[in-house]
Amino acid sequence: MSDLLAHIDGPDDLKRLYVVQLPALADEIRAALLRYCAAKGGHIGSNLGMVEATIALHYVFDSPRDRIVFDVSHQSYVHKMLTGRRLAFTDETLFGSATGFTNPDESEHDSFVLGHTGTSVSLACGMAKARDLMGGRNNVIAVIGDGSLSSAVAFEGLNEAAELNGNLIIVFNDNEMSIAENHGGMYAGLAELRATNGTSPHNLFRDMGLDYRYVADGNDTSALVQAFEDVKDCDHATVVHIHTLKGKGLDAAEEGRVESNHWHNPVPAAEAAPARPNARKTYGGMAMDALAARFDAEPGLVVISPATPGSNGITRQWRAAAGRHYIDTGITEEHAVTFAAGIARAGGTPVLATSATFFQRAYDEIHQEFALNNVPGTLLVFSGGISGTDNTHSGAGDVVMFGNVPGLTCLAPTSGEEMLRMLAWATGDARRPVAIRMPGEAVLAGERGGEYPRFVATTAESAGAQSDVAQSDVAQSDVAQSDVAQTDDGAMTKADNGKAGDAAAAAGGTAGRSRGAGEVSVDDIAAASVAGDPWARYTVTRAGSQVAILGLGNAYPLAEKAAASLDDAGVRATVIDPHQYSTIDTATLDVLRERHTVVVTVEDGQLEGGWGGKIASYYGDSPMRVLNFGARKEVTDRIPLDALCKRYRLTAADIADAALKALHG
Amino acid sequence: MSDLLAHIDGPDDLKRLYVVQLPALADEIRAALLRYCAAKGGHIGSNLGMVEATIALHYVFDSPRDRIVFDVSHQSYVHKMLTGRRLAFTDETLFGSATGFTNPDESEHDSFVLGHTGTSVSLACGMAKARDLMGGRNNVIAVIGDGSLSSAVAFEGLNEAAELNGNLIIVFNDNEMSIAENHGGMYAGLAELRATNGTSPHNLFRDMGLDYRYVADGNDTSALVQAFEDVKDCDHATVVHIHTLKGKGLDAAEEGRVESNHWHNPVPAAEAAPARPNARKTYGGMAMDALAARFDAEPGLVVISPATPGSNGITRQWRAAAGRHYIDTGITEEHAVTFAAGIARAGGTPVLATSATFFQRAYDEIHQEFALNNVPGTLLVFSGGISGTDNTHSGAGDVVMFGNVPGLTCLAPTSGEEMLRMLAWATGDARRPVAIRMPGEAVLAGERGGEYPRFVATTAESAGAQSDVAQSDVAQSDVAQSDVAQTDDGAMTKADNGKAGDAAAAAGGTAGRSRGAGEVSVDDIAAASVAGDPWARYTVTRAGSQVAILGLGNAYPLAEKAAASLDDAGVRATVIDPHQYSTIDTATLDVLRERHTVVVTVEDGQLEGGWGGKIASYYGDSPMRVLNFGARKEVTDRIPLDALCKRYRLTAADIADAALKALHG
Repeated sequence: MSDLLAHIDGPDDLKRLYVVQLPALADEIRAALLRYCAAKGGHIGSNLGMVEATIALHYVFDSPRDRIVFDVSHQSYVHKMLTGRRLAFTDETLFGSATGFTNPDESEHDSFVLGHTGTSVSLACGMAKARDLMGGRNNVIAVIGDGSLSSAVAFEGLNEAAELNGNLIIVFNDNEMSIAENHGGMYAGLAELRATNGTSPHNLFRDMGLDYRYVADGNDTSALVQAFEDVKDCDHATVVHIHTLKGKGLDAAEEGRVESNHWHNPVPAAEAAPARPNARKTYGGMAMDALAARFDAEPGLVVISPATPGSNGITRQWRAAAGRHYIDTGITEEHAVTFAAGIARAGGTPVLATSATFFQRAYDEIHQEFALNNVPGTLLVFSGGISGTDNTHSGAGDVVMFGNVPGLTCLAPTSGEEMLRMLAWATGDARRPVAIRMPGEAVLAGERGGEYPRFVATTAESAGAQSDVAQSDVAQSDVAQSDVAQTDDGAMTKADNGKAGDAAAAAGGTAGRSRGAGEVSVDDIAAASVAGDPWARYTVTRAGSQVAILGLGNAYPLAEKAAASLDDAGVRATVIDPHQYSTIDTATLDVLRERHTVVVTVEDGQLEGGWGGKIASYYGDSPMRVLNFGARKEVTDRIPLDALCKRYRLTAADIADAALKALHG
Repeated sequence: MSDLLAHIDGPDDLKRLYVVQLPALADEIRAALLRYCAAKGGHIGSNLGMVEATIALHYVFDSPRDRIVFDVSHQSYVHKMLTGRRLAFTDETLFGSATGFTNPDESEHDSFVLGHTGTSVSLACGMAKARDLMGGRNNVIAVIGDGSLSSAVAFEGLNEAAELNGNLIIVFNDNEMSIAENHGGMYAGLAELRATNGTSPHNLFRDMGLDYRYVADGNDTSALVQAFEDVKDCDHATVVHIHTLKGKGLDAAEEGRVESNHWHNPVPAAEAAPARPNARKTYGGMAMDALAARFDAEPGLVVISPATPGSNGITRQWRAAAGRHYIDTGITEEHAVTFAAGIARAGGTPVLATSATFFQRAYDEIHQEFALNNVPGTLLVFSGGISGTDNTHSGAGDVVMFGNVPGLTCLAPTSGEEMLRMLAWATGDARRPVAIRMPGEAVLAGERGGEYPRFVATTAESAGAQSDVAQSDVAQSDVAQSDVAQTDDGAMTKADNGKAGDAAAAAGGTAGRSRGAGEVSVDDIAAASVAGDPWARYTVTRAGSQVAILGLGNAYPLAEKAAASLDDAGVRATVIDPHQYSTIDTATLDVLRERHTVVVTVEDGQLEGGWGGKIASYYGDSPMRVLNFGARKEVTDRIPLDALCKRYRLTAADIADAALKALHG
């Protein structure tokens, strides 16, 4: 094999090669990609298909003077290798030193950090517009494709492009597939273009007012170089439609053409140890199995996935068995949510599954078509909360995004079993728009290792079947109360409104259970529960006094650990599972005033605009001290979860320390 | 004139007419629409164009068994007149009894309440899918057009439609224009379809895999009836492209074809009294004039409006003069924000103006392309906050939406002059993503009537030019402090960290001014100001003690009124203008602890997830009482602002009462 890549530290080095040398360089790059992805994983398929096109782009155009915007960046590895970052892909000791996305902080050849699909055309339109206003003469190139063309915003961009009347080149990487497979009527038209070597009059791009040219072999460097030379410095918007082979060089991918080459695992499946259980797939799979069992009896029950089904436990086998009860809409979150609203209004039961970060695209439709229209539909929100992911896929804002939508019921289960009951309710009796935050790794860890065995008493249970779980924790009320400092007479009067106090009085939802000495009826609380919503009331999972710790969803295990830490300091804290983050359970919060002076909220997402602040606001006019634990308003980039928890003081020790400080002044 | 309309109380009555009678009915409806809109205003142009098509739809199809989904509902007045609600449009005493939007609460013929564009196709896809899953045989019809076809989500819907393999009829109302005028390359293709009587091979709809037919005269009832009969009960997705005349019957509109027929004012302009100043147009116009003055010197400065420019004070004259410094992208908020990010990254200075409610569509792009990429761009947010508007155009969630975006600076000016300084900064030294909440009626009322004359001292001023406004309010510190009850020793220690106390010490940003007796230096606060952001620090506009009232943006005048009410009770409250809602000015909040026990926040938007709760959270671990005033988490529908303020206790008396109660227990 040649040794060309080793001498390429930037586009200028590439330009010194002869065109006839480019295929050899492509072979080297492809081999390097295969080695890299075998070791590190990554979006191997789309990058393998774009090797020749990326070489040709940098051979013809003059980056960074000419600007190349890679859509969603799934196809930017080769671009990175050619722009000074090859060692991050060829030197094992440097693997991972470049991100999987374009990033202006890494290189002047990158214009944006992008992780959501379809925006490259609009971004390029903007760069072209600024150039024309300010008198520049550079080329602006958007690279889109690999399924991202069907994204709504891409159409808005294409529609604008023709109007700019200036240089703009849109390279459409047509690899015949999206992450799983392409969806939508436009793909038939694209197939016709391929079949006619680009000559069919049925041409979506021309119909949007764009010039057009077709490159039948998008893995032929010479043809690509020629095509790009032809459009370079053109004075209008032009689409270069290149037909590439996704996963070229990866045998299995060339044969299978499945989503397995969207994200390649480092170790070949045959050799791999049994996969570590993953919360997303575990709970996604549990949810899908529960729904599938109902398909025969409920013809209108339908699961919608706007791409990436596999990541959420919606396996190929499951999809095949689900048949018409499953729809992959492609990468179209806005449509998917709106589509779900239509299904629900017409009597069906839609369940829409995708990542928190991708739901952002449908923020408006969640508000308008879904929540305002009060349709009975269910959104399954995966990967909510802080994580070690990159900065374009953060789920840390999910509670902010969903929890503030008027009319949307937002549930945060703390076990797989509770998630299933919530799903059953959401797709059954709820008859309202519901979002369920799928449990994350912290919950799974507790369930797997039994690290956090716990009693989960929900109002659903108390209203119906009694749980037979050990209730010993709840019955306890052996807490020393001598050190509860009453700090304000006025507020004490307010809190002490006729209730005979005991810490267990805060145990909302436990009405009907046998009571220990000193326990009081909580009928007054039960009466306040929200009609028809079994999750509106918080559950006291552990009765205590002085300090109450509320842990939302994934943060619940941490709340229990913090309470355990407080035990060591002689404070038996109350622990509460709120179940949901769409309403404040004021009845339970009011009862807490009786025997608590410190309330701690713990959530694994952004505090500002999130959940705990609402509890601080509720107690604002009282002497209750409220400590909100959660994430800063920031987007983090591949910072390990442990480090984030340390940064945000999301540790049992930090929480316990702060609670003690607040308690004792 | 005939008297047909008076006998139509539902589609069945319409079906009793002969086809030849339909034009006479259309004339009656058109005359009624003109009378109605002359009296009430409304989306007259689009409805006038749809008279015949709506008659034909209800003549051919069997609503409510067949479902008709009107996109954004701008064209649903005639539908309402034909489905039992004609008196709301013909009987003056009942004008206004039906909303301007479809609404399932009004009629079984309405499937959704819709106010944002482009979702009808996806909704119809969902209804068709549910029908096919559950064994129904009804028709599902989406009515789209009048500019909404270029909305991103509409393309996602069209792309799905072909895949459903079931009945779905998409009526595309092509009136050759959007709210102002259509934008985008697709409109040339549509023009070619019109010119070729629908026979051009360049057919966007066919390219999306859809069947297609063209009706050249979309105001010809017979032709429409025939076309709809032809597609009724078809087994696949079909587009019926009808060419209509927007504003048909309205002379000026037929001639001018301008956006003035998007929303028709009740009184003809020639006869009208000078228009009442409107905050949106006033401040929008001020901003546009300030920008226009810089165009010659700043070639990269560009204003982007995703439709509805006129509503925001971007007049036709201004647009004409702005030339290439102005772009209307059509109804494409996602593209508009992404486009702005591209312009900014390429060195331009984009200013994007639209309503808070429409920015919801770009939530993801605001997070990703705009804020995460830290581009120097400005978003002008109009109509933020509660108002008497309908439930699909609420701006009550704007602070929730923008204020929680990591990396976005969110400003809330309390005067036109401050807005201009903020705009100058955002488009100048800021070099970061900024959202400016344009002042509303409450601010304008204060400026117009001098009802709330006030001193606005900003840190920008204190850092640079000194304001020569009267400072008498700030110099005062004559407040009785005897009744400040210190409720918690521990917290007092924390707050009293070495500062010689005086109420005026809280006057952040006033460093350098002459001081009255007993005032202290605030240099320690100034030193804490955020580098490069002149708005990060709150301004104490009135020094007091015991109670501090912070009024955000439009709520600032109310904060001053509440303080005046407290004067009567012998409490001289501190008043604070926070200027922004993206960070908490902890330095000022810390100083407030010295002489205040009650902090009141006032905002004119949703409290949950909003601004005041963050201040409650900040003070959570202290004895400070915090009262958050703002709106409930709900969407309201045409409830007058006064009634909303009463509902939310957003009155000076309510705020003063609550503050006194908190102060005295």
